[in-house]
Amino acid sequence: MGSTEDLDYPQIILQYSSGFLVSKVMFTACELGVFDLLLESGEPLSSDAIAACLGTSTTGMERLLDACVGLKLLAVELTQGGALYRNTEISNIYLTKSSPKSQYHIIMYYSNTVYLCWHYLADAVREGRNQYERAFGISSEDPFGAMYRSEGEMLKFMAGQNSVWSICGRDVLAAFDLSVFKQIYDLGGGGGALAQECVSLYPNSTVTIYDLPKVVQVAKEQFVPPEEHRITFHEEAELYILSKILHDWDDDKCKQLLSKVYAACKPGGGVLLVESLLNEDKSGPLETQLYSMNMLVQTEGKERTAEEYSRLLEAAGFGDIRVKRTGKLYDAVLGRK
Amino acid sequence: MGSTEDLDYPQIILQYSSGFLVSKVMFTACELGVFDLLLESGEPLSSDAIAACLGTSTTGMERLLDACVGLKLLAVELTQGGALYRNTEISNIYLTKSSPKSQYHIIMYYSNTVYLCWHYLADAVREGRNQYERAFGISSEDPFGAMYRSEGEMLKFMAGQNSVWSICGRDVLAAFDLSVFKQIYDLGGGGGALAQECVSLYPNSTVTIYDLPKVVQVAKEQFVPPEEHRITFHEEAELYILSKILHDWDDDKCKQLLSKVYAACKPGGGVLLVESLLNEDKSGPLETQLYSMNMLVQTEGKERTAEEYSRLLEAAGFGDIRVKRTGKLYDAVLGRK
Repeated sequence: MGSTEDLDYPQIILQYSSGFLVSKVMFTACELGVFDLLLESGEPLSSDAIAACLGTSTTGMERLLDACVGLKLLAVELTQGGALYRNTEISNIYLTKSSPKSQYHIIMYYSNTVYLCWHYLADAVREGRNQYERAFGISSEDPFGAMYRSEGEMLKFMAGQNSVWSICGRDVLAAFDLSVFKQIYDLGGGGGALAQECVSLYPNSTVTIYDLPKVVQVAKEQFVPPEEHRITFHEEAELYILSKILHDWDDDKCKQLLSKVYAACKPGGGVLLVESLLNEDKSGPLETQLYSMNMLVQTEGKERTAEEYSRLLEAAGFGDIRVKRTGKLYDAVLGRK
Repeated sequence: MGSTEDLDYPQIILQYSSGFLVSKVMFTACELGVFDLLLESGEPLSSDAIAACLGTSTTGMERLLDACVGLKLLAVELTQGGALYRNTEISNIYLTKSSPKSQYHIIMYYSNTVYLCWHYLADAVREGRNQYERAFGISSEDPFGAMYRSEGEMLKFMAGQNSVWSICGRDVLAAFDLSVFKQIYDLGGGGGALAQECVSLYPNSTVTIYDLPKVVQVAKEQFVPPEEHRITFHEEAELYILSKILHDWDDDKCKQLLSKVYAACKPGGGVLLVESLLNEDKSGPLETQLYSMNMLVQTEGKERTAEEYSRLLEAAGFGDIRVKRTGKLYDAVLGRK
């Protein structure tokens, strides 16, 4: 980038322009079940066979498959009988519903909810607030009321968050040695995927999930295995985890919340913030800058730098603050009482 | 890609997932006039100053600017008085309205029209047809009736096409030596940007634009300079240019159109197809595969391989068919009568 070649022909601008086409091709192949079918079939299939199995047009399906080949999400082999498509390894692992590391649910949430909210990004920047009203005709006063506007929407969101922790959870929990904390409290722990990573990484810990009553009920019924006795839904802890909580709220609400956590926390206990950290010098990371835009479009919050989170923690009384970047999407900030 | 590292952490899937966020950040900064303001100001500005000038929220604007820094569309300098933002060179050239190579209009078309059509990509693949009805509540029977549903929409589309030819026009017209043709006929020539590139590259040529009467009227009034006497709107030609025409239609309609062109063409004359060519082996190019999906979502057509265009030309009677890839978005296929 920045070479004279680019200035003659703006490759990055063309790439950015087609970013939404790339997203929707992958999202749509997921939604229609292309990767699941190709995993189950165990052999390469023609576009006609795939279209017939999935009940789609052949003209649309062939083009979708070809674009997935361009994205290296599928591989194609040209045979005498025509083109045959199969999953690439990365699609088998991350884009099939049944894989333990499946990103299917977060992709569906992105494709059906976030994509439409972002159609109104210019309005979000003009007004400085989220766009649930324009996108879905629902009041944007209470973002979680909007996000959890039906049990179906809430389930999609919870399953989506669990997808994220299947690829990032271990790194944020291993960022610091948390084995000194036996009773851990995951505030807004939702579907419990981070709690499960936690008891797996620290077998002597127990994790209590705190969330809205309707979220807890669904988490118990559908996400946390009943035989997992180390994960409960009561209240007492040494370590409080706030994963992707503070980024939903403005500074005042964050301070109120952290003050309550500080008051409840035992001396020697701690709070672990799991968030995507912005660089102090505004140089990135790009993903986090994009997520911060999404907080504008969907919530009342924003992404913050390590320094900004440290200041919030200090304002609530926490000390000995340590920051660890994981190199993946989410980082970790630990404070102690 | 394909390394074991990628299989542990699916970087390309995360990148594809945020493709639409990237697109909308660039589109929105264009729409709100960020790049125009920073070009006009002649000096770096703070996010507060930019928000005030453009009438937006400060909280939204700062995040938008920071994300543009991550995309290398803006540069930031941290001063004692706070962060100051300025355009990068690529933004000055391609993202400001006044630049001769401005992509502003095609970006507005992508952001406001194509983006919303693509929200319904899964439906397009299921049904095998365009999604104007779901996206805009207008009948999808006549794609150009839908695309030109108001003079405003038609203007946006024509200006957008002109943006494309400002970066790709010269290459497709230089792909073959067209100086043997004096009278050139640009079928569906719209706003006339390709015609202008043509008379600039071949000063002895004259170009006649053929299009719908309302398109011709707007082209005369708003796009083609009245002093440019080499560009007219009558009918007689040696060379017929069909740029991005056949990709809008199915094979039957393409054959009908090419047969009419063949009948009108003088012996020795020719037809130049300007299209984005798919590889014969389905390996790409990715951009063209994505465009072919867009033809599904917006038109009755598709992108084709050189072989497929050659067969359409042969079926209409054309011979001596030559193909030239330009390495940019659009390629050239020449047939002779």
